[in-house]
Amino acid sequence: MIQKLADRIREKHAPVVVGLDPNPSLIPKHLYDEAARSLRNKPEADDELSVTASAIWKFNRQIVDAVADLVPAVKPQIAMYEQYGIPGLRTYLRTIQYCREKGLIVIADVKRGDIGSTSQAYARAHLGRTEAGGVMHRIFDADFATINPYFGSDGVEPFIEVCRQENKGIFVLVKTSNPGSVEFQDVRMEDGRPFYELVGEKVSKWGESLMDGKFSDVCAVVGATFPEQAARLRTIMPHTFILAPGYGAQGATAADLKGFFDEDGEGCIVNSSRGIIGAYQKEKYTRFGPEGFAEAARASAKDMIDDLASVLG
Amino acid sequence: MIQKLADRIREKHAPVVVGLDPNPSLIPKHLYDEAARSLRNKPEADDELSVTASAIWKFNRQIVDAVADLVPAVKPQIAMYEQYGIPGLRTYLRTIQYCREKGLIVIADVKRGDIGSTSQAYARAHLGRTEAGGVMHRIFDADFATINPYFGSDGVEPFIEVCRQENKGIFVLVKTSNPGSVEFQDVRMEDGRPFYELVGEKVSKWGESLMDGKFSDVCAVVGATFPEQAARLRTIMPHTFILAPGYGAQGATAADLKGFFDEDGEGCIVNSSRGIIGAYQKEKYTRFGPEGFAEAARASAKDMIDDLASVLG
Repeated sequence: MIQKLADRIREKHAPVVVGLDPNPSLIPKHLYDEAARSLRNKPEADDELSVTASAIWKFNRQIVDAVADLVPAVKPQIAMYEQYGIPGLRTYLRTIQYCREKGLIVIADVKRGDIGSTSQAYARAHLGRTEAGGVMHRIFDADFATINPYFGSDGVEPFIEVCRQENKGIFVLVKTSNPGSVEFQDVRMEDGRPFYELVGEKVSKWGESLMDGKFSDVCAVVGATFPEQAARLRTIMPHTFILAPGYGAQGATAADLKGFFDEDGEGCIVNSSRGIIGAYQKEKYTRFGPEGFAEAARASAKDMIDDLASVLG
Repeated sequence: MIQKLADRIREKHAPVVVGLDPNPSLIPKHLYDEAARSLRNKPEADDELSVTASAIWKFNRQIVDAVADLVPAVKPQIAMYEQYGIPGLRTYLRTIQYCREKGLIVIADVKRGDIGSTSQAYARAHLGRTEAGGVMHRIFDADFATINPYFGSDGVEPFIEVCRQENKGIFVLVKTSNPGSVEFQDVRMEDGRPFYELVGEKVSKWGESLMDGKFSDVCAVVGATFPEQAARLRTIMPHTFILAPGYGAQGATAADLKGFFDEDGEGCIVNSSRGIIGAYQKEKYTRFGPEGFAEAARASAKDMIDDLASVLG
C-alpha cells in the first residue's frame, strides 16, 4: 500500500494529505440549512445530530470533489465524527467510501491501540474484515490507520498482521506535533537518548517484515513542528514513510519539512486540515466567501503544494 | 464520580467490574438464532452485521441482568463493538444506556487520546455533550473513560475539563497488563526509574485539581499482572484510584492484587471480562450450559468477589 501512496505522490507532485477534520466552526451555515431541508420528514433522521452529520457530509463531499485531482490522500479524523454519535459515524463511513470511489487513498486518523486481542478487533474495524453470519465484511475499510504504540509490540502486531493480509498500512505515533509531546516522548532514557528514538527504532524494526518497494507499510507519525527530531528520526528509520501533521495552523513551515524527506525528496506526506478545509475563513481566501468554501480549499491546497515544492525542488 | 464508585464498591463488598468484551466466540449460538428471527423482514436491519450486533445486545442484557445486584460497574470494550461497524456501535450505545438504567457505573474502555482539540471531541463523545442545532446532546455518555497518555498533558487536559463539568472520571493508562508493556513502559529513564513511574506521577498531579472525597476523578490503569510495579505506583499515586485488568484469563490472582489497594482495602477495582462473561465455557461452570451463560456469569462473579475478599479481609 505504501508503494501506491508513494506513486500517487510522485504522479501528482504533491506530498500532501488533506485532513478531513470537520470542526463544526468550519462548516458554512448554508450547509446546515440544506441538510435540515433534505432530512425534513425523513423518519429517524430529522434530529439535530443527524442534521449536523448530514451537513458535514455535504461539506466533505464538496471539499473532496474540489481537491481530488490535486492530492493523493485524505485523512479523516474520526473524533470529529464520533462526537456526533451514530449519525456522525455514518458520515465518517460514507466519507471514506466516497474518497475511495474518487481514487483517493484514505488514512483513518483513529489513534487506536490496546492489548493484542483488542487491537485485533480495532484492526478488523478500520483496515480489515470481520466475520458475521459466516461471511467476511469490510467495516470502515480505510487504506491506512494511525496507531498508538504505548502498549508495545504485542499491541501493534495485530495491526501489522491485518496489513499483511489486506495490503494496507499503519502510521505509528512516534513524535506528535503538540507542544506537550515533549513531556513523555522526549524523556531522556538511561543511555541519554530521548524516548521517541526508541519508539522510532521499534517502528523501523516492525516494518522490516512488511516492505513494499522502497518503504515499509509500517509508517510513522512525526510532527512537522519538530524538524530537528525528525532529521534524527529520518536516519533511525531509513525505510519508514512519515506522516507529518502540524503544517500551517500548528505553525510548521515548508522549510521545517525538508528534513522529513529522504535524498530523493520522498518518504513523507504532510497533512493540513484547517489550513485547507477552513481556508475560506482566512484573510487570504475570503474572496471565495462561505459559498465558495470548496474552491477556497482547492486554492489553499494548490498553494501548499507549491510551497512544499519550493523547498523540495 | 469516583466517590460514587468507591461507595458502590463498599456497599456491595465487591471491587469488581465486569468487562463487557463480547468476543464472538463467547456468544452462544441460540442468541444468533434469536437475533436472526427477531430481525427478519425488518428493513435495513436484516444483514449479518446487524444480526451479530443484535445477538451481542441480547447477550449483554442477560449478563447485566444476572450481575447487576452483585457488582458496582461494567466496562464495555468499544473495539469489540466497533468491529461490527454502525450496527455494533448501536449495540455499544444501547448497552451503556441499559447499564446506567440498571444503576451500574459504566467505564467506557475506549483508550482514546490525541492532541488537544481532538481529545476535546473524544471527551464530548464519550463523557460529555456535543452541540448540534443549538442544543447540547449526550452522545455515548459513559461515567468513566480509559485514556492513553502518550500525547502528554495537553492531550489529557480536555478530558479532565469535561470530567470537571460533567462530574465524570478518567482512567489513564499507566502500566498495562500485557507482556509487551515492558517494552516502552518499563524503559529506564536517566534517573534510573522506569518510564511508567513518570506517567504515574503525572496522573497523580493531574488528579490534584479534581479530588472527589478520598480519591481523584483522574484515575489510573495498572495491570493486575504487575503486582510489584503496582505496589510502587500505589505510593507514587496515593490519591489515585486504580483499575486493574488482567485477573483470571491473563493470569493474575487475588494475592497479586492486595498491593493495589490502600491500607483501608480501598482504591482499586479489578476487571474480569472473559472470566465472567465466558464462564459457561470453562470446566468449572459447564453445568450451566450455553443456555445458562448468564447464570454462569453470576456464579463466576460471586466466586471472584469471594476470592478477592479472601485476601482483602
